[in-house]
Amino acid sequence: MKNTKFPDRIKNLRNYLNEEKIDAIIISNEENRFYFSGLRSSAGYLFVTLNDLYLCTDFRYTELATSQAPGWKIERITSRFDWLPKIIKDCKVSTLAFEAEFTTVNTHKFLENTINNSNLKISLIPTSDIALKFRAIKDEEEINLLMKAIEIGDKAFEYTEKNIQVGMTETEVAWIFEKSVREQNAESISFDTIVASGKNAARPHHATGESKIESNSTIIIDCGAKYHGYCSDLTRTIVLGEANEKIKKIYDIVHMAQLAAIDLVKVGMTGEECDSIARKIISESGYGDFFGHSLGHGVGLNVHENPNVGPKSKYVIQNNMPFTVEPGIYLQDWGGVRIEDIVIIRDNITQVLSKAKKINL
Amino acid sequence: MKNTKFPDRIKNLRNYLNEEKIDAIIISNEENRFYFSGLRSSAGYLFVTLNDLYLCTDFRYTELATSQAPGWKIERITSRFDWLPKIIKDCKVSTLAFEAEFTTVNTHKFLENTINNSNLKISLIPTSDIALKFRAIKDEEEINLLMKAIEIGDKAFEYTEKNIQVGMTETEVAWIFEKSVREQNAESISFDTIVASGKNAARPHHATGESKIESNSTIIIDCGAKYHGYCSDLTRTIVLGEANEKIKKIYDIVHMAQLAAIDLVKVGMTGEECDSIARKIISESGYGDFFGHSLGHGVGLNVHENPNVGPKSKYVIQNNMPFTVEPGIYLQDWGGVRIEDIVIIRDNITQVLSKAKKINL
Repeated sequence: MKNTKFPDRIKNLRNYLNEEKIDAIIISNEENRFYFSGLRSSAGYLFVTLNDLYLCTDFRYTELATSQAPGWKIERITSRFDWLPKIIKDCKVSTLAFEAEFTTVNTHKFLENTINNSNLKISLIPTSDIALKFRAIKDEEEINLLMKAIEIGDKAFEYTEKNIQVGMTETEVAWIFEKSVREQNAESISFDTIVASGKNAARPHHATGESKIESNSTIIIDCGAKYHGYCSDLTRTIVLGEANEKIKKIYDIVHMAQLAAIDLVKVGMTGEECDSIARKIISESGYGDFFGHSLGHGVGLNVHENPNVGPKSKYVIQNNMPFTVEPGIYLQDWGGVRIEDIVIIRDNITQVLSKAKKINL
Repeated sequence: MKNTKFPDRIKNLRNYLNEEKIDAIIISNEENRFYFSGLRSSAGYLFVTLNDLYLCTDFRYTELATSQAPGWKIERITSRFDWLPKIIKDCKVSTLAFEAEFTTVNTHKFLENTINNSNLKISLIPTSDIALKFRAIKDEEEINLLMKAIEIGDKAFEYTEKNIQVGMTETEVAWIFEKSVREQNAESISFDTIVASGKNAARPHHATGESKIESNSTIIIDCGAKYHGYCSDLTRTIVLGEANEKIKKIYDIVHMAQLAAIDLVKVGMTGEECDSIARKIISESGYGDFFGHSLGHGVGLNVHENPNVGPKSKYVIQNNMPFTVEPGIYLQDWGGVRIEDIVIIRDNITQVLSKAKKINL
C-alpha cells in the first residue's frame, strides 16, 4: 500500500477517534473528503478507522481515485450504503460516527436501515465540526495553494479596476473580473462577485445586477478566485471621479480600523477580541451602528470557514490559520465602504497575504 | 395581500397537504423555495398551510422578497428556527411536514428542540420528493425560460464548434463555450462542461482537463446554459479531420437509436419503455454492453430531475415534461459517441427543443 498524501490530516482524525473511543467515522462532505483523501469527486464516502482507510465512490471516480488517493482502499459503490456492512464486519466496528451537519434525514434513515438489515450491532454517533476544526489550521501545501488563489484574485481585481467605467452594469464589471480569473487558469471564481455602486453599496450582501456604475460615489467590489479547491476573498472600495470629504472620512475610518486589527491581532486572541479592535475604532468615530457584520472569517476549501472573527466568537486564533479582516461602514441612501484582506499569523508574525492595491483618495 | 406569482404551484402543494391531512409544510431546498415563491435566495424557509404563506429569510433578502415574492408574508429571521413557534401557534398547526431529503440531521435536531422548548405539540412528518414531483411537469413560464436556456446553449455550442482546433486543451474548449454562454447574458453554465477527446471520450463522465484535442477521433462535448434558474443540456459528438468507417458506423447507430426514441416516445410510457426503444437498437447492433447509462432525465431548475428515463424507471412520461434523450456507445481505448437533445411532448406531439446542428460524417 502506498503512502497517503496527507498523513498528518489522517493522524488528526485518528487522534479524535482514539480520544472519543469511536471505532470508525464516515466522512461525507465533499470538501472534507477531498481534504483527507486528495480525490475531488462529487459523490462518495470515506470510511476511516484506526487501522484502515476506505474510499468508496462510483464508477466515474474509481480510476481517478487510484491515482489521486494513494494509500486508500478503493471501493466501487453502486447504491448508497451497499459497501458498508462488509467493511464494518471486516474492521470489527461497533461505534460509528457520521457528519450530522452534512447528512440528511433520509440518508441517515438509509444508514440505519442498512445496519439493521445486516443484523449489525452498531452505535451510530452524530458528530459535528470535526473536519472543519482541523481545517482551520492550514499546512504548507494548503498555504501555497491559498496564496496562489489570492495572487490570481488580486491580479484579476487590478485588471478589473483598470477597466471599470461609469455606465457599465454591475454584472458587466463582475464578468470582467471572472474572465480574468479564468484566463489565469483558476478553476472558477470562489463566490458570486459583489459589485455594488451608489446606494447599492449600502447593502453588504448586494446581489450584483443591472444597476449602472456611478461616478463620485463608492463602489464596493468583493471578489475571489478558486485554485485547486482553495478560495481567495478580497474587497476593495473604489471611486470613479471625485471622492468628496464624506467618502474620504469614512474610507479613512474603515481603513484605520482594518490596519489596527491587523497590527494588533495575536495568537491566542479570540475572534471576539480581534473583532473588537476594529469595532472600537468605528464606534468611537460614531459609526458603530453601521458596521453590521463580523470583522472576518477563515478561508480555505470553503470561502467561509473557521475561525469566525465576530462579536460573539470564542474561537481562538492560532498560527497558520488564515482569515479575513474586513470592516465596513454602510449608510442607507448613501453607500458604503468595506476593505478586506486575508491575513495569516506564522511563527507569531502577522502577514497580509492580499496584495491588491488600495485606493489613494 | 397581493396575488402570488405561481398560484397553480401553491394549489398543487395545498392539495397534497389536504390529501395527506397535514397542516403545514416547511420547504427548505433552494430550488423548491424559488419554485413556489419566486424569490431566489441562498438561505431561508417557506412555511405553507392551507390558508397562509410565510417566506422566512434573513436581512440580506427581506427587501428583495417584498418585490419578488408578492402574496407571501415576509418574516425576517436571525437564527435557524426563531420564527417558527409563533407561526405554528398563529396558524394552529399540529402536523408539520419537512423535506427529509434536504434537511440535515443537525437541522432536524434544531427543529425538534425548538418545538420541544416552546412546549408545542407537533407531529413532525418527514416527506420526500413532493416538490420534485410537481416540478417534472412545467408550466408555460417554465417552458419559455427553458427554451431560452436551450437557445443560448445551442448558440454557444455552435460557436465552440466553429472555434475548436486540434491541439487546444479540453479546458480551453470548455472555456470557449462558457464565455459564449455568459456573453449571451445567461447567468452561468448549468454544469461543468464535458469536453472529451480521443480515449477520454470512452468515459461518459470524463473530467475536462489538460488533455489535447485530437484529430480523426471523436470529441464529445456535453454542455448547458442556465437562464433565470433553468438549465439546458446538450451533447454533440464531432470529429476534426477524417472520420473513419468505425466512427461513422457507431455514430449512425447512436443517432438512429436517438431518432427512434424521439419518434416513438408517447405520453403514458414509462421511462423504462422509452429507454428500451434506443437500447434495443444499440443492443441489436452488438453494442448493448457499451451503453452504460440511462437514456435520459428531466431538466428544469436542476439539470438532472424527474423523470428518470432509464432501464428500471417506472416514471410515467406526460405532456409538458421536458427530458433529455442521450444514447451513447463507449469503447475503452477507442473513444465514444453520445448525442443528446431535450424533447418535450405537448398536446401529445413530441417536439425537439434542442436546435444545435449535428455533424454530417
